[in-house]
Amino acid sequence: MKAQVNIPLKNVKVDDVFWNGIQKLVRDVVVPYQEDIMEDKIPGAEKSGAIENFRIAAGQAEGEHFGMVFQDSDLAKWLEAVAYSLSIKPNPELRKKADEIIDLIRKAQEPDGYINTYFSLSHPERKWQSLHECHELYCSGHMIEAAVAYYKATGDDGFLKIMRRNADLICSLFGNEGGKRRGVPGHQEIELALLLLYDVTGEKSYLDTAKYFIDDRGIEPSYFEEEIKTRGWHQWADKEDRIYAQTHKPVREQDKAVGHSVRAVYMYTAMAALAAETDDRELLDACDKLWENITHKQMYITGGIGSTVHGEAFSVDYDLPNAITYSETCASIAMCFFARRMLEIRPNGQYADVMERMLYNTILASMQLDGKQFFYVNPLEVIPGISGVVQTHKHALPQRPQWYACACCPPNLSRMLLSIGEYAWGEKTGDNSNKGEFEKKSKEFIFAHMFLGGSAKFTVAGGVTINCESGYPYEGKIRYSISTKQKTAYFHFAVHMPGWCKNAEYMVNGTKVSAAVKDGYAYFERNWEDGDVLEISLDLPVLRIYSNLAVSGNAGLVCLQKGPIVYCFEEADNPAPLAALRLPRESEITEYKISEGVLKGISALSAEGFIETGSGELYTEHPPVTKPTPLKAIPYHTWGNREVGEMRVWIRK
Amino acid sequence: MKAQVNIPLKNVKVDDVFWNGIQKLVRDVVVPYQEDIMEDKIPGAEKSGAIENFRIAAGQAEGEHFGMVFQDSDLAKWLEAVAYSLSIKPNPELRKKADEIIDLIRKAQEPDGYINTYFSLSHPERKWQSLHECHELYCSGHMIEAAVAYYKATGDDGFLKIMRRNADLICSLFGNEGGKRRGVPGHQEIELALLLLYDVTGEKSYLDTAKYFIDDRGIEPSYFEEEIKTRGWHQWADKEDRIYAQTHKPVREQDKAVGHSVRAVYMYTAMAALAAETDDRELLDACDKLWENITHKQMYITGGIGSTVHGEAFSVDYDLPNAITYSETCASIAMCFFARRMLEIRPNGQYADVMERMLYNTILASMQLDGKQFFYVNPLEVIPGISGVVQTHKHALPQRPQWYACACCPPNLSRMLLSIGEYAWGEKTGDNSNKGEFEKKSKEFIFAHMFLGGSAKFTVAGGVTINCESGYPYEGKIRYSISTKQKTAYFHFAVHMPGWCKNAEYMVNGTKVSAAVKDGYAYFERNWEDGDVLEISLDLPVLRIYSNLAVSGNAGLVCLQKGPIVYCFEEADNPAPLAALRLPRESEITEYKISEGVLKGISALSAEGFIETGSGELYTEHPPVTKPTPLKAIPYHTWGNREVGEMRVWIRK
Repeated sequence: MKAQVNIPLKNVKVDDVFWNGIQKLVRDVVVPYQEDIMEDKIPGAEKSGAIENFRIAAGQAEGEHFGMVFQDSDLAKWLEAVAYSLSIKPNPELRKKADEIIDLIRKAQEPDGYINTYFSLSHPERKWQSLHECHELYCSGHMIEAAVAYYKATGDDGFLKIMRRNADLICSLFGNEGGKRRGVPGHQEIELALLLLYDVTGEKSYLDTAKYFIDDRGIEPSYFEEEIKTRGWHQWADKEDRIYAQTHKPVREQDKAVGHSVRAVYMYTAMAALAAETDDRELLDACDKLWENITHKQMYITGGIGSTVHGEAFSVDYDLPNAITYSETCASIAMCFFARRMLEIRPNGQYADVMERMLYNTILASMQLDGKQFFYVNPLEVIPGISGVVQTHKHALPQRPQWYACACCPPNLSRMLLSIGEYAWGEKTGDNSNKGEFEKKSKEFIFAHMFLGGSAKFTVAGGVTINCESGYPYEGKIRYSISTKQKTAYFHFAVHMPGWCKNAEYMVNGTKVSAAVKDGYAYFERNWEDGDVLEISLDLPVLRIYSNLAVSGNAGLVCLQKGPIVYCFEEADNPAPLAALRLPRESEITEYKISEGVLKGISALSAEGFIETGSGELYTEHPPVTKPTPLKAIPYHTWGNREVGEMRVWIRK
Repeated sequence: MKAQVNIPLKNVKVDDVFWNGIQKLVRDVVVPYQEDIMEDKIPGAEKSGAIENFRIAAGQAEGEHFGMVFQDSDLAKWLEAVAYSLSIKPNPELRKKADEIIDLIRKAQEPDGYINTYFSLSHPERKWQSLHECHELYCSGHMIEAAVAYYKATGDDGFLKIMRRNADLICSLFGNEGGKRRGVPGHQEIELALLLLYDVTGEKSYLDTAKYFIDDRGIEPSYFEEEIKTRGWHQWADKEDRIYAQTHKPVREQDKAVGHSVRAVYMYTAMAALAAETDDRELLDACDKLWENITHKQMYITGGIGSTVHGEAFSVDYDLPNAITYSETCASIAMCFFARRMLEIRPNGQYADVMERMLYNTILASMQLDGKQFFYVNPLEVIPGISGVVQTHKHALPQRPQWYACACCPPNLSRMLLSIGEYAWGEKTGDNSNKGEFEKKSKEFIFAHMFLGGSAKFTVAGGVTINCESGYPYEGKIRYSISTKQKTAYFHFAVHMPGWCKNAEYMVNGTKVSAAVKDGYAYFERNWEDGDVLEISLDLPVLRIYSNLAVSGNAGLVCLQKGPIVYCFEEADNPAPLAALRLPRESEITEYKISEGVLKGISALSAEGFIETGSGELYTEHPPVTKPTPLKAIPYHTWGNREVGEMRVWIRK
């Protein structure tokens, strides 16, 4: 039931005022640094061993396995980021390094296709016995994702072949058919990876095994509980929490997002991909309910999801505390994966809106502007002395830690930020069978899901290239130049109109036109000619956003948003305590560019507000005295780049 | 440096409109029920074994020790409550039962004075080896408190003698002198108990050993760390957290309340008692700093202290979350002990104010109106579905649990509520040497710390009895009738003027008089004649209270208080979500009596307020619509007696 497919990264060129610098930073700073970390070359950084483990397993070095049972996944995520980096910009030296590592993986692979340095080196007798905690399937999944990306980026199928042998092993072991064994992964990931592998190979067993892993989850008797009974050893915890592991009921019956948020959303991503691939309406229904639950009841304004530190997990509806949130970076990344899969089924603006909310806020906020420090937890309120200090707030740090202290998350960010090109564009060619839910007059569509500067090549209508120029997200003018291979090309050009945008104007070749807006997309159906220009002007006002009153901690508060950018208040710009500040409804909000310091050039907001000053008593019958004060807000994704101080997204109205 | 001493319970008769019913409930319902629990007579309740353990240790039954290493303390607290109950109202049957149990304790006592059924029965070879976790000193402390109370109530010194032998053993074992061993208790309690024992016996070794336990705490090398090294076994945790255990620095240098709140405040109580007894200014300085820190930076408006569930502990300054607070009932009880000791040193209204804040709010709120269910954790905001459910709020229940599920805390409440008479009155006779800090013209004083209906007998000026009649805390008229043994009695009558009271009028024998008000006490110095009447009229308006803005979650909120009573809003009376309600500053607040249901007769508040209604979206640019709505508030101590619903103390202004 795919209504459109995204354009592969190799056909997209990102050239964007906002994103160029970020991608360059990841390519030139983060990816090389991560390589050094995994080669244990950074003095003072925690040992990784991720590459050395493969050298040992490949017989090229002596020693023992170092690190976690899932240490291999660090390398996999890095290789995936490398693939995206090579897609964006060739780099022979990096390519050579990656090929050497892939060669190690080949040599470390066992004759039956098995790859996992922990078990190969430390416990070969214990393979596949603790799917609950040992994450062999998780590591394979990430390595498969890397291989698929590497194949797409380079055209070289060497790595892909290695991982196909690994996937073949998994498919031969797990399933409901005769001779196979039951098993579901403790950390979901293999499902979405097998579906990606199916996508590039067409090998049906990958699709079938992904479906098996999805459908055997939550079925009685619980696989994990059976596994624990038979296993005479354990790695960490043996106690299964069904909610935490999303095994509390069959996946198709799940309607509220629960448990470990990254695991959950990786699974929802696979569910949506499988539903699209197999026209599985029942599975799509479950995806719809889970999407609705997250985005309507369990998501922060900044795109954070998974609000509780306990199990890095979803909580219950409307439990969205600002200061003690978890909002793991990887969970917001996972949500982009899920959104992208839903978009393939149904071009509906809500999915693209959520992608933007994630990308421009929590995901970007997780990285220091210099690319050298990272947040795993993304709070919406920080009070130094409490945040990161008291036990309830221990996880919600006021400053990004030195990133090398935990090498497992930055590469997830790297692969996300280097692959945004793949999220921006889609097409539906006439060749696609007409299974989509959504009406269409013509069979050929081009979709712009995000306003991403640069160009993309499409196969519709005999071949089309579209170039996008914009100052988005800070400016609302977008200019699309259309090149057609043939003289004219008849297709619908569907451009995502963000949910926050109430008015837009459209011009084709300088003449104002109207568009049919449906489900958050403006459709321009036209016999496009080579050289046509579509210009879009979005109204891009600063909005005051109010929270549902069921979120107790947000009542009486307001948040500022302009386009997809959510703003926050920092002590560096405002008097503390920030809880004493008020932004009245009638106060005009002005934009300005920060003129100095590390935030130089960032577009910020200012307004006249009030500050309340109390008596100093803990409790008093004397109401606080209110005085005018200027207020300043900066984009949430730039917080924490100056001296440590208070920060809050929601401010009193 | 005692400026006054409280009047013993046997000389106080409580006859108070507010407290009579509560004391009757505790006497007639709670104390007998607790006995049945400890005799394992309640079907369905968790087994206690507290009395059976003593029967076994006394050789009167067969079996093994049951329960915690500190199971004996349940019985001790119950015996203390029985003593207070007997002080208030003789009860031969209860007395007989208590005497039988005391006889078991006598028989369970080992020849050297040792009493602890866990170690006597289960591990005699491990006595005194784990002071950190095994709480032998804690159990002894509670049993000593019980014995002192029983002696004061009955005049029978049998139990006292038993516990003196136990105390003598402790004094012979622990100390810095030659032949003694080092040791400090994991759970402070023995210190305050030894000081009480010193108070009734005059035996200096009790004073000295209490001082030893206080002064050896936080000294290097850490006793607990030394203990862990030498001990080859452990009961629970072996890891010492110095902050949690208040051993992070010498007690005299501690200036912020930290760690387990009950343990901390039991220790501060002992520190204040020791300072008073020994004129120890340095120790008093520490008490002053700790008192100031708690009451100015770590105390809820309801009197809750110890804001974090992690370690049932104090957090950092201004970390006072309403929904995820701990605010253990026992911690507020401990704070009354501390306040009472500080009052002995210095008749300053802040101590009596805090006692009232604790008693009329958190302490009373911990008990269901029927006396059958109890809170250990006293939240200031409850949202069903989140409170008591999600991991961060698991401890903050929306309903009092069936009290027998945890038999350890209700008896602490029982002993507190049955002994309030002992907190209400004090005197300073001419015989006391003049060591106090505070100026006086005459040497004889009577203090009324609380407006407690009933009478008290004093020794000043040849013998005085004062009778108090009042409708306090709901009415502000208090009438004191003075009876003197001699024709006249020259003394200062010092009546606590609560901090919230801005205006009061005084009449003696119907004629308006003025009073010198100093440090929260109104002083009436006079040659009182038998039959004189002092009438006090307190202004008792409903106050709007504002929180220090450093408490982030209280900014923009207001709380209602009348006299010592803090009010709260419940879903039973108001539309949910309560976070959507607003009480404007100009709205008039009316008192009314609840006319039906379980709260019938309770004095409540009503006012015109507003409710905001949102769009139903999680986030929206449409501000919520504001409509008028009547608001109703009930005393915080009566919350949770109707159907489960939202509750909050602080409401938007």
